Amino acid sequence: MNKPTRKGRAIVLLSGGLDSATAAAWAISKGYLLTAISFDYGQRHRIELCAARDVARSLGIRDHVTLTIDLASFGGSALVDKSIAVPKNRHEEIRSNEIPATYVPARNTVFLSLALALAETREASSLILGVNSVDYSGYPDCRPEYLEAFRSLANLATKTGVEGTHFEILAPLVSLTKPEIIRLGISLHVNYGLTTSCYDPTDNGAPCDECDSCLIRAAGFEAVNAPDPRVLAFMPSGEQ
Amino acid sequence: MNKPTRKGRAIVLLSGGLDSATAAAWAISKGYLLTAISFDYGQRHRIELCAARDVARSLGIRDHVTLTIDLASFGGSALVDKSIAVPKNRHEEIRSNEIPATYVPARNTVFLSLALALAETREASSLILGVNSVDYSGYPDCRPEYLEAFRSLANLATKTGVEGTHFEILAPLVSLTKPEIIRLGISLHVNYGLTTSCYDPTDNGAPCDECDSCLIRAAGFEAVNAPDPRVLAFMPSGEQ
Repeated sequence: MNKPTRKGRAIVLLSGGLDSATAAAWAISKGYLLTAISFDYGQRHRIELCAARDVARSLGIRDHVTLTIDLASFGGSALVDKSIAVPKNRHEEIRSNEIPATYVPARNTVFLSLALALAETREASSLILGVNSVDYSGYPDCRPEYLEAFRSLANLATKTGVEGTHFEILAPLVSLTKPEIIRLGISLHVNYGLTTSCYDPTDNGAPCDECDSCLIRAAGFEAVNAPDPRVLAFMPSGEQ
Repeated sequence: MNKPTRKGRAIVLLSGGLDSATAAAWAISKGYLLTAISFDYGQRHRIELCAARDVARSLGIRDHVTLTIDLASFGGSALVDKSIAVPKNRHEEIRSNEIPATYVPARNTVFLSLALALAETREASSLILGVNSVDYSGYPDCRPEYLEAFRSLANLATKTGVEGTHFEILAPLVSLTKPEIIRLGISLHVNYGLTTSCYDPTDNGAPCDECDSCLIRAAGFEAVNAPDPRVLAFMPSGEQ
């Protein structure tokens, strides 16, 4: 493999999921030096934070910040508010344009803003995230036009922007399907066994196999004809 | 006084300072129903949070959320990092365009993003903040072009934006000088004795009288020929 051209420092949003792990591996392959940021935002699936830590370690990311921010105190989403049920077995509805109950108000804007603040303190000018607008579950803050608006804002919002830094928002998966993302990750040797995608896992981290995120992930691995190492890890021995 | 036209719910950023108290009072006078949000972000001047609570109460704002978010863990600003000194007695330099050490990386972007998340859960479509670009100490995220960029982002970023809500960002003080702000607040009966502006107050909340914020505030009250009730409150009895 050719050695990548050395790029500057970048902040990567690392959720512990499949997409952000792939985006981080892509950035490393392109020569970025990464600082990772993860958010303890009151999500039901706290197992994500352990997964993010494991993913960072497996990718050799030494600077990993986990920030606590109590979005659950606002309520209004099935991902943080236990009084709202995570939708299950929506095999047909996933492809609709409806925004589901798992939408967290302004989540990517909050996360990108904090990544931007961290970027200024780390002298980084790139923000990297694993959103994609193909299998995106209908979230408005995963669309290319949203990302472009945030880029414009970043240059106006910051001391470094005013002083001449041009921020870039890199979303390398934005136009990829889930199977394409998985193929990219496999080619970059991402250990998907460390990642978790489920919106409603058991206490020990086992996926529910029924939420939108589990269904999209399962269809992705099926399409590339590869087993999902995360699912294998939670199968009773003998079934694998 | 004419009864104001009833407007919708709005989220106001309430810092405990003079400007945000004036912006909140202005919004109430225009008929907005307010939810206030304050941030415990590791600021040196924690007394702000008590002031914000007192200001909210004095204005009759019942829905007041204080969100903890550890920006201090990022470092990089005199307002959150105790290893960086708050600049003092910069009588000449305040009017320069230089961005001072008290700049907190991407602060207004972080705060507006969280206000936007709260707005979605409260079904509010207005965000109100007390920034001004005249006596603004050189912060990039207090400029009108920044606020316009955030408004565009808000409509793209959110479920309510996609569904047709048009967010507005109201910065009623943006083109006012500090004396004009104080005159407006006095006409709206804002109790400035409850507000704190100092970047480096003593433990009991007494202003230092030397930081940029104290100097700008003192010049403002002097220009309108009114005593600052906050300063009076901390004078030894007999000096008033």
